[in-house]
Amino acid sequence: MPDFDLVIRNAKAITASDTFTSDIGIRDGRIVQLGLGIGPGVREIDAAGRAVTPGGVDAHCHLDQPMPPPTRNADDFNTGTRSAACGGTTTVIPFAAQQKGQSLRAAVEDYRARAAGKAHVDYAFHLIVSDPTPEVLKVELPELIREGFTSFKIYMTYDDMKLDDGQILDVLDVARQQGAMAMIHAENADCIEWLTKRLEAAGRTAPRYHAHSRPMLVEREATHRAIALAELVDVPILIVHVSGREAVEQIRWARAHGLSVFAETCPQYLFLTAEDLGIDDSYKGAKCVCSPPPRDKANQQVIWDGLNDGLFTVFSSDHAPFKFDAPEGKKPNGEEVGFRHIPNGIPGIETRMALLWSEGVLAGRMTPHRFVELTATGPAKAYGLHPRKGSISIGADADLVIWDERDFILKNEQLHHEVDYTPYEGMRLKAWPGLTLARGEVVWDGRDFHPQPGRGQLLACGAPSLMPARRAA
Amino acid sequence: MPDFDLVIRNAKAITASDTFTSDIGIRDGRIVQLGLGIGPGVREIDAAGRAVTPGGVDAHCHLDQPMPPPTRNADDFNTGTRSAACGGTTTVIPFAAQQKGQSLRAAVEDYRARAAGKAHVDYAFHLIVSDPTPEVLKVELPELIREGFTSFKIYMTYDDMKLDDGQILDVLDVARQQGAMAMIHAENADCIEWLTKRLEAAGRTAPRYHAHSRPMLVEREATHRAIALAELVDVPILIVHVSGREAVEQIRWARAHGLSVFAETCPQYLFLTAEDLGIDDSYKGAKCVCSPPPRDKANQQVIWDGLNDGLFTVFSSDHAPFKFDAPEGKKPNGEEVGFRHIPNGIPGIETRMALLWSEGVLAGRMTPHRFVELTATGPAKAYGLHPRKGSISIGADADLVIWDERDFILKNEQLHHEVDYTPYEGMRLKAWPGLTLARGEVVWDGRDFHPQPGRGQLLACGAPSLMPARRAA
Amino acid sequence: MPDFDLVIRNAKAITASDTFTSDIGIRDGRIVQLGLGIGPGVREIDAAGRAVTPGGVDAHCHLDQPMPPPTRNADDFNTGTRSAACGGTTTVIPFAAQQKGQSLRAAVEDYRARAAGKAHVDYAFHLIVSDPTPEVLKVELPELIREGFTSFKIYMTYDDMKLDDGQILDVLDVARQQGAMAMIHAENADCIEWLTKRLEAAGRTAPRYHAHSRPMLVEREATHRAIALAELVDVPILIVHVSGREAVEQIRWARAHGLSVFAETCPQYLFLTAEDLGIDDSYKGAKCVCSPPPRDKANQQVIWDGLNDGLFTVFSSDHAPFKFDAPEGKKPNGEEVGFRHIPNGIPGIETRMALLWSEGVLAGRMTPHRFVELTATGPAKAYGLHPRKGSISIGADADLVIWDERDFILKNEQLHHEVDYTPYEGMRLKAWPGLTLARGEVVWDGRDFHPQPGRGQLLACGAPSLMPARRAA
Amino acid sequence: MPDFDLVIRNAKAITASDTFTSDIGIRDGRIVQLGLGIGPGVREIDAAGRAVTPGGVDAHCHLDQPMPPPTRNADDFNTGTRSAACGGTTTVIPFAAQQKGQSLRAAVEDYRARAAGKAHVDYAFHLIVSDPTPEVLKVELPELIREGFTSFKIYMTYDDMKLDDGQILDVLDVARQQGAMAMIHAENADCIEWLTKRLEAAGRTAPRYHAHSRPMLVEREATHRAIALAELVDVPILIVHVSGREAVEQIRWARAHGLSVFAETCPQYLFLTAEDLGIDDSYKGAKCVCSPPPRDKANQQVIWDGLNDGLFTVFSSDHAPFKFDAPEGKKPNGEEVGFRHIPNGIPGIETRMALLWSEGVLAGRMTPHRFVELTATGPAKAYGLHPRKGSISIGADADLVIWDERDFILKNEQLHHEVDYTPYEGMRLKAWPGLTLARGEVVWDGRDFHPQPGRGQLLACGAPSLMPARRAA
Repeated sequence: MPDFDLVIRNAKAITASDTFTSDIGIRDGRIVQLGLGIGPGVREIDAAGRAVTPGGVDAHCHLDQPMPPPTRNADDFNTGTRSAACGGTTTVIPFAAQQKGQSLRAAVEDYRARAAGKAHVDYAFHLIVSDPTPEVLKVELPELIREGFTSFKIYMTYDDMKLDDGQILDVLDVARQQGAMAMIHAENADCIEWLTKRLEAAGRTAPRYHAHSRPMLVEREATHRAIALAELVDVPILIVHVSGREAVEQIRWARAHGLSVFAETCPQYLFLTAEDLGIDDSYKGAKCVCSPPPRDKANQQVIWDGLNDGLFTVFSSDHAPFKFDAPEGKKPNGEEVGFRHIPNGIPGIETRMALLWSEGVLAGRMTPHRFVELTATGPAKAYGLHPRKGSISIGADADLVIWDERDFILKNEQLHHEVDYTPYEGMRLKAWPGLTLARGEVVWDGRDFHPQPGRGQLLACGAPSLMPARRAA
Repeated sequence: MPDFDLVIRNAKAITASDTFTSDIGIRDGRIVQLGLGIGPGVREIDAAGRAVTPGGVDAHCHLDQPMPPPTRNADDFNTGTRSAACGGTTTVIPFAAQQKGQSLRAAVEDYRARAAGKAHVDYAFHLIVSDPTPEVLKVELPELIREGFTSFKIYMTYDDMKLDDGQILDVLDVARQQGAMAMIHAENADCIEWLTKRLEAAGRTAPRYHAHSRPMLVEREATHRAIALAELVDVPILIVHVSGREAVEQIRWARAHGLSVFAETCPQYLFLTAEDLGIDDSYKGAKCVCSPPPRDKANQQVIWDGLNDGLFTVFSSDHAPFKFDAPEGKKPNGEEVGFRHIPNGIPGIETRMALLWSEGVLAGRMTPHRFVELTATGPAKAYGLHPRKGSISIGADADLVIWDERDFILKNEQLHHEVDYTPYEGMRLKAWPGLTLARGEVVWDGRDFHPQPGRGQLLACGAPSLMPARRAA
Repeated sequence: MPDFDLVIRNAKAITASDTFTSDIGIRDGRIVQLGLGIGPGVREIDAAGRAVTPGGVDAHCHLDQPMPPPTRNADDFNTGTRSAACGGTTTVIPFAAQQKGQSLRAAVEDYRARAAGKAHVDYAFHLIVSDPTPEVLKVELPELIREGFTSFKIYMTYDDMKLDDGQILDVLDVARQQGAMAMIHAENADCIEWLTKRLEAAGRTAPRYHAHSRPMLVEREATHRAIALAELVDVPILIVHVSGREAVEQIRWARAHGLSVFAETCPQYLFLTAEDLGIDDSYKGAKCVCSPPPRDKANQQVIWDGLNDGLFTVFSSDHAPFKFDAPEGKKPNGEEVGFRHIPNGIPGIETRMALLWSEGVLAGRMTPHRFVELTATGPAKAYGLHPRKGSISIGADADLVIWDERDFILKNEQLHHEVDYTPYEGMRLKAWPGLTLARGEVVWDGRDFHPQPGRGQLLACGAPSLMPARRAA
Repeated sequence: MPDFDLVIRNAKAITASDTFTSDIGIRDGRIVQLGLGIGPGVREIDAAGRAVTPGGVDAHCHLDQPMPPPTRNADDFNTGTRSAACGGTTTVIPFAAQQKGQSLRAAVEDYRARAAGKAHVDYAFHLIVSDPTPEVLKVELPELIREGFTSFKIYMTYDDMKLDDGQILDVLDVARQQGAMAMIHAENADCIEWLTKRLEAAGRTAPRYHAHSRPMLVEREATHRAIALAELVDVPILIVHVSGREAVEQIRWARAHGLSVFAETCPQYLFLTAEDLGIDDSYKGAKCVCSPPPRDKANQQVIWDGLNDGLFTVFSSDHAPFKFDAPEGKKPNGEEVGFRHIPNGIPGIETRMALLWSEGVLAGRMTPHRFVELTATGPAKAYGLHPRKGSISIGADADLVIWDERDFILKNEQLHHEVDYTPYEGMRLKAWPGLTLARGEVVWDGRDFHPQPGRGQLLACGAPSLMPARRAA
């Protein structure tokens, strides 16, 4: 009788800290044995010395998130996790977003229903707190955190989401009391509105002006403010989608002052620039409208430096799937609208891992350990999923990627999301996942997706483990 | 027939990134299998859910290093590695020090002879380059690097060792060409001499004035200079024994500018202050005379912050074993001498691991992963010994520590070095290694040392692996 | 016939840049001749080699400013300018404060009426914009600036005054279009409110908790934000009453990035600390409740450094005259209230000059030129009153102070304000104005005040002259 | 009988702090009266509302300085001060340079002899200490300082001049004891030598490689080191000829930490870039070889910002007059040599004032007060010549410039130095001195120079007056 459901033979296994050549014995969806020449499996796969990394944890993506009409996410839990799986990501953490006036629990229940029976890989929810009523602060949020929803996002911009500084303090205080992780979207709403009105008054409404409406200082200011608020409450925070030098400098300042300020960045800040929003008034720049906007080449280097140096803990996609040529997407009601009205966000849940493996690790910009840290282990720790996720070790979920090195030109038709474009169309890559294993099951074999909607489970998250469990006296 | 020479059962294994509960199967001195319920071993040890970490890599220690008489290291490779083993350290990297006028190879051969047949745990050598002649730069150093001596130390102070800036550039350039790691002792020699003369002229020669002769700016200046020289050559460096805020700020500045500047610190900068050199003119302060000197409480916090934040890659002992009450130690020729003449350095090879596990991890100041990173994985990577050392993974050397949690008062009589004091006498600790395994052999069982001089081998080091193997174009 | 109305003989005249010994010939209230041995005056005063400086320009003081009852400024234009004159200040710039809902012009007219016929020295008005309606932004403010009200203050805290970021941008934009100077009170209102509620909930309402409710980060955050907003609009700003290190660092950062960010500080940040608000719950700490609160000794040094280094352009009193033992003062309705309800501000219009001359210049902490720059020339330039004010030169108003060096203990009974205490009671000083000349008339002779209500005139201010008149292309 | 030797009528007089319209009455070479309508002068000049500033103090220039043959300064005290006078400079401070092995006093006596009977304007000497023997430190330097040579320059580069860090500490300590001002040329000699050898080995010896041999970090490192040494000794220093961002950042850091670190910059860092040393291997780039080399446009802006912000105290020419097409100049022995052998330095004593007035004040980049501060008052204070020099006030020397606004193209043939080129050839200027008055005598009338060799006197300098005369307890 075989010892294992599945054995991966001769893997060049890579963790956030170590590299070793080993067979990987899997049973009941978990890694149960490591060593060379371990017993037989029902199924065996020879990794032939290829790199094997933990499956990706995409800790920032938007799937089937309720939106004001006509806008709609192109991907739901089915197509979104399909796309994730085909790109080597085995855990996704989208957002259960509270509407103003809605109870937070209702938002969670609604989102749970949207996910039910659809996901191909495991998922957890971050909460978005947009209406921190006393009930939310005192009852709902503490309860939900105890139930395993241990992270939430705070917006400093977007009219329907943003909190004022007093509300942020209140919410951060709950994070502190309950040991939850607060993520912050840091842009100054008033500055954006002020600039947007001026640009509109000047007739500058083409997609590229989106970048003009959110210069780096807008992000820097909010980052500094978020840090100050967290310092006041004495609680860790994680600044999401950091785009360039000015915000990075604020985070470095905080770290140098002993503050637990963590940070996330995304592929668009490594591989796109503001020019991708257009160098003329063409509407196709709408494809790359996201917030904060991509900056320039020099800022890309700043982000690379921060990834290598340990400034960043999380590398996410911020997958925000809006079709380009669709009334529910980048052309609301079928029209080419002013940049203010273009849905913010770009797709990337499937390309995230391969972009960083190819242009980071294989191009000699990053160690493979750092890749694993940023794409899997770090996010798993930040959001209380480690060591179940983001780890190649005994007892961990058998969420794995076997990498194929191959030279090819990326095209959207190769991808499995429901979006009609990728911002990285035409980019030359050196690798792609040759196999994705989710809890021991092959969901992507390098050519074909193996659908099994509903096999993905909702994960209860524990406490973040980036910091010591308790503070020194 | 047993599958393994040794099996550790039910370990709570901790790596620099992961935690998992597993048996550890060991054969021929290596970890060959991980998993629960693995086959039998010739010998089995039940770790009973206790923490098991990689054996320590002490990347900065001085053993039997040739000194100008009468001064002499109290520990040689026998007693030094004995002390290391009893403290959970399974690899040491002392220094093959070139004398001015001596060939570097001769220094290595001499040091090889000093080590031969004595060590209880594995060891590698850093080189100390004190006379970078053309022969050294063009022939010896490149050859020795290729032979596995891939790191060397540059002194910016001490008359018999120090290099001027031009020499440092020459040596760094070899590091760049050969992919070696340059360690730098950063203190400004002229400032120290100038201050020392003034203190002496004022009759201020008690041990405590050692700290007055080396204020933080002396270290800051040299750190800035070392960074500038490395920036000019475009090569990574590692600043050793960083003591406090001013040097830390310079290193942060470098990192923020994308420079590969790594750093080491030591227990004395976490647990001692300048007051330990004396608050009056008593000579017992000589016990804590080391360079740079310990600073103050606020600077201790700066070091803790840097350890947690990723600023530091290496936590070493800088074990410099001089007896206090001995003519070959802190009382040259039997006299209480002026601070200028007190041999610089303090013992710590045995206490390093337990101090950080107890006061870092168990006190809630540090995650256990970070502990492993700093005491084992980081140094192993910095000096080309990873993943053979510093790792709990398939194929790694079975160098392991099983931790005992127990509350006790530290006394020098418990230690196994040849030094007649410990600077940490009387400190209350919460843990000590309950077992040290070196390549699968028990060298310390929590009560007794198991001597086996000569079992420790000289390791050939590979290239540092802290950075990507090659640079992006 | 005498050549001059008044001649000061043998003055050791000090300007912001120069020192010279000269007679000063005055006619029609202006300085018309300099030189030794100039012709006779109707009146002559021998300065006997004593220092003569320009009369002070107190660019931040509150006189008869409308307040919500029962609170009331103890000083009006009569008593306030009396006190100013006796302390060597010959120009004051209090605030015409717009109430929310009120037209800005109405506020100016009301304030003009309050001043009419009362002032003993010249005065100008800053505007306080608390309700930037389109009418205010497009009509009133531009008109008032053109009429000579060229500076205004923006509050980031205080419910009845504070503007949100969008409003601040709008108002700064007017400053940019019209060449006006915007002053900013930088504290984060939400943080203060959040902390205040917590302190109150904990029963911590004694005066000293006022300092706890406004830690330095509250000021730092708002300062950073103000700088970012000014950077966005591309306009100079002046941060008022900077209290310590954290805000100073932000301003230094701005200056190092080429931004025109100017700064003011006040005597309370040099001579008081948070301990002056009480070390127990005694109510007498209410005497020193002001915002931002005084910090500690180390921060005093930071302020001294900034004064000397050129970081600060203006040294003002922020005279906010509330009686201590009065229902309209620090004891609203006669009660000892919680710190939230204590009127913010302390008196200082009369002591400002002597404190800085004595403890700055005479104590060897500051050059006399820097004293003149900070107390007279700098503020006169910042607010468009130079060279009429703040200058000893041909054509300047004959606003002068002749200094007496004398050692004495400061007591409130020596002062001429209507406040029943001075925060500097009991301080030992080395000098006091021996004569104050306002447009050539003696208003204070070192012993007696020479009242002449109404002789002080409302000044029309020009453009600020700290920066070049126009920008380089 | 006329009251004055000379009266300037209707001057728009500008000081470092003030502007006023006045007649200027001059007697015995000094300003004795200010006011409109003052009595008659033997001679009268109508300034007709034109700007009148203090004559320039050029605090960094090289005239007839002994050099190793064949190199020779093209200008001696005659031609150098002629050129200065025609450019509006009325005081020069060249260097009495000690040769190694020479007594410092001998250097001064030699230099005094070189100056005797030649100068057209007043002059003082800085000392260059290149051999700080005990005799120099204990006897000569203190004596010379007491005799009025109160400033000296320390070189950190140039083999024949440079001091090591210990020597610098010794010399700075004398500055501290005697209240002298230490100027520091901050470049790291070893780095330059190391780079130069590499460039030479690669055949890169054209003039433009001079800039490659001295990148900004070479200046940054030495600046940081100089600051650290001064901090150790606790003494003010002045960093000369600061070229760009990296050094500026170090100086800002020092100022922010309360250190008295002053700085000088020069026209070449505002108006030239490294491209002026050549974009190909043409030898004409030798004309702009100076150290530190000019940087780029972005660094020019950094220098402008520092000039406006108060970071810089002194704006000097660093006039180092070497003919281009001459064996004693840029072509040693008549040859086009490698950049290492090109005499370092460029001419500029005559153009300094007009360049800054035209491109700074008239172009709207700088206030006229700041112009006066930087070109006259600041240097006069730094070197103990104020208020005799650098001031328009009673008792000051009548050293004045009346400015003509006129648009013209600068050509070397218009200049009065002995150098055969100006680096600013072809530059369009908006102004030039229309009259230069030196102690009341017209030395330049806008068209013609009025020679009077020997009228210029050696000035005894007092203590620097940038800081308070004594330190606060």
